[in-house]
Amino acid sequence: MTHPRHRLDDLIHSPVRLSVMSALRHADAVHFGLLRDTVEVSDSLLSKHLAALEAAGYLEVTKGYAGRRPRTWYSLTAQGRAAFDAYIAALREIVDAAAPPAGSGE
Amino acid sequence: MTHPRHRLDDLIHSPVRLSVMSALRHADAVHFGLLRDTVEVSDSLLSKHLAALEAAGYLEVTKGYAGRRPRTWYSLTAQGRAAFDAYIAALREIVDAAAPPAGSGE
Repeated sequence: MTHPRHRLDDLIHSPVRLSVMSALRHADAVHFGLLRDTVEVSDSLLSKHLAALEAAGYLEVTKGYAGRRPRTWYSLTAQGRAAFDAYIAALREIVDAAAPPAGSGE
Repeated sequence: MTHPRHRLDDLIHSPVRLSVMSALRHADAVHFGLLRDTVEVSDSLLSKHLAALEAAGYLEVTKGYAGRRPRTWYSLTAQGRAAFDAYIAALREIVDAAAPPAGSGE
């Protein structure tokens, strides 16, 4: 099986998780509220998707305070960055697929 | 709702359909057997996905012969090309998302 679709990580392909991973790929750490507002998703749905990504080892979670408000930050692990980059590479291969070999219109 | 994930066409996002649409975007027409071999999918699954794309108005189907062998060709309609290009634009916006605004790590 050589078609790049076989290398599309299902866990990342979901639109919400892809959006979360993309947001985190471009930042050191993002807190829950900002992720929610950026991706425009409910607290409960975001929690569910973050838990799936954390269970896969793609996310690191840090709890702390901003002033007196408790906050939870998320960042990609090295494994998460590698998985995201591999996903993007597979996606590019699919989308930039050269025309099928001569004879396609036979 | 302004996050680009809301503009990801579900019909195209499925890995097999994305692969089919990508292959067709780069060719005038592709016959069933070549699509199947390119995307590496069973006849029955490919038929199902092609029917969904045709029902959405994204595909045009042409039946004919290559020598004495019956063949069915598929090509994107103008609507299909527009939908694919809009999907790719939304995907690029998600993936190339700038870092969230300052304060992301607060």
